[in-house]
Amino acid sequence: MQAWSRNALRRGRSIGFVPTMGCLHDGHGSLVLRSVRENDLTAASIFVNPLQFGPREDFGRYPRPFRRDCQRLTGWGADVLFHPSPAEMVPEGLTTTISVNNLDKTLCGPLRPGHFQGVATIVAKLLNAVLPDRAYFGQKDYQQLKIIERLVKDLNLPVRVVPCPTVRESGGIALSSRNRYLTTAQKNKANQIFAALQWGEKLLKSSPYYASSALNTVKKLLKQISGSRLEYVELVDAESLEPVQALRTKCLLACAVRLGKARLIDNLLIEPR
Amino acid sequence: MQAWSRNALRRGRSIGFVPTMGCLHDGHGSLVLRSVRENDLTAASIFVNPLQFGPREDFGRYPRPFRRDCQRLTGWGADVLFHPSPAEMVPEGLTTTISVNNLDKTLCGPLRPGHFQGVATIVAKLLNAVLPDRAYFGQKDYQQLKIIERLVKDLNLPVRVVPCPTVRESGGIALSSRNRYLTTAQKNKANQIFAALQWGEKLLKSSPYYASSALNTVKKLLKQISGSRLEYVELVDAESLEPVQALRTKCLLACAVRLGKARLIDNLLIEPR
Repeated sequence: MQAWSRNALRRGRSIGFVPTMGCLHDGHGSLVLRSVRENDLTAASIFVNPLQFGPREDFGRYPRPFRRDCQRLTGWGADVLFHPSPAEMVPEGLTTTISVNNLDKTLCGPLRPGHFQGVATIVAKLLNAVLPDRAYFGQKDYQQLKIIERLVKDLNLPVRVVPCPTVRESGGIALSSRNRYLTTAQKNKANQIFAALQWGEKLLKSSPYYASSALNTVKKLLKQISGSRLEYVELVDAESLEPVQALRTKCLLACAVRLGKARLIDNLLIEPR
Repeated sequence: MQAWSRNALRRGRSIGFVPTMGCLHDGHGSLVLRSVRENDLTAASIFVNPLQFGPREDFGRYPRPFRRDCQRLTGWGADVLFHPSPAEMVPEGLTTTISVNNLDKTLCGPLRPGHFQGVATIVAKLLNAVLPDRAYFGQKDYQQLKIIERLVKDLNLPVRVVPCPTVRESGGIALSSRNRYLTTAQKNKANQIFAALQWGEKLLKSSPYYASSALNTVKKLLKQISGSRLEYVELVDAESLEPVQALRTKCLLACAVRLGKARLIDNLLIEPR
């Protein structure tokens, strides 16, 4: 992979990179299409990263429709696929870990101990393998995006991180590989997550100093989704990810909801007026 | 720095890199000269890394003879110097840390908590800033060398680590910037450190299954150096850095000694016959 990239660089070609865990959907598609627009060459990776799954999470059953993924990547115009084996990426004897501290203290961090350390370590490896000029990440995984932005800055990684907007189905549900775990009925219910966040946005914009009241309303709406379990809903500063009591700076309203066999996350960036 | 390196790569030039903390001596010189021989271009860095000093260590008084260092680098044939400020390398808000686990459990690790984490984090930053093909490290800091080799392997850093033999004065003392802290009398005493390690090597080679007896002899010799305080002397496997009881594999006999105002480390690689 490095040889391919260094060769491209030697020929003056820019490289865009879209790291994924496979089971590709149009959210990934929007990243690949943007990379194709902005770079001479686009690399994608498919690697289901064992280090970012907790012991009771869905690593084993995470869907891996490899052939279909390849077809989709070709269709979107990607030039090369990096598809390392777990033994290559996480060999016995791997002992190095990267911690991006502070940003993992809120939102999904406390609920998924070790998750973002696993993300940071493997994303650093992927970036060093692919050596891209630009790397594309979806805002649906906003905390991950911010952690990778900090990782890249803190370690001087020679890449520009490009944040890309969340892609949604017409009903509102954010595209996610894990939506596969949902029945049609559950998917309809999942649309209410986005609706609740949008309602929260409205309340926050009209009463920016009553954030906790808005948050309580969103909480109530999310808890009303039948068959679901709310893990968290938080309003945090969009840069530090620290909880805020009012909409003074650009903020993130984010939640995690368990629904059937899926754990769904979603968020909205909200700017003060 | 990255722009310079990417430009060199685009023109097909290979880059060798010698990271240093300055106060350069002929040990550094041997690294630079080797890099000049093996690469089209040679970059050196001077950065006294605050993250690798403990709170009661010599960060403040570490010598920084910058002009003289520049002259020496020019004389050895280096092409470019990377000399970042502390604020550039360790800005406020830097929260990412790299831990290379296990290899920091022996030798200097337990005595300098956080030291190798500080080394790994900053060396990764330097490598990402300079983007060399090869990076040169002295075997005098053998544990650091092994930790960097693992860091590079574990994170897929696109660089080859080149280990270089320790350079010594004619009396045996290993060259070190910290030798400056020694009086002439103390320097003469410090020669006994290498002599003790060499004696240990002889004993181990003749009786490879009596490592603890050889180690005790070395310990006695080191403790006899007047005005010194022995921090440790250990025999470890040269790859895992785990203590061994016999000379079965390639091993490292290593010690740390306090003498006057200096903390001196030295080591010998010993192969079984």
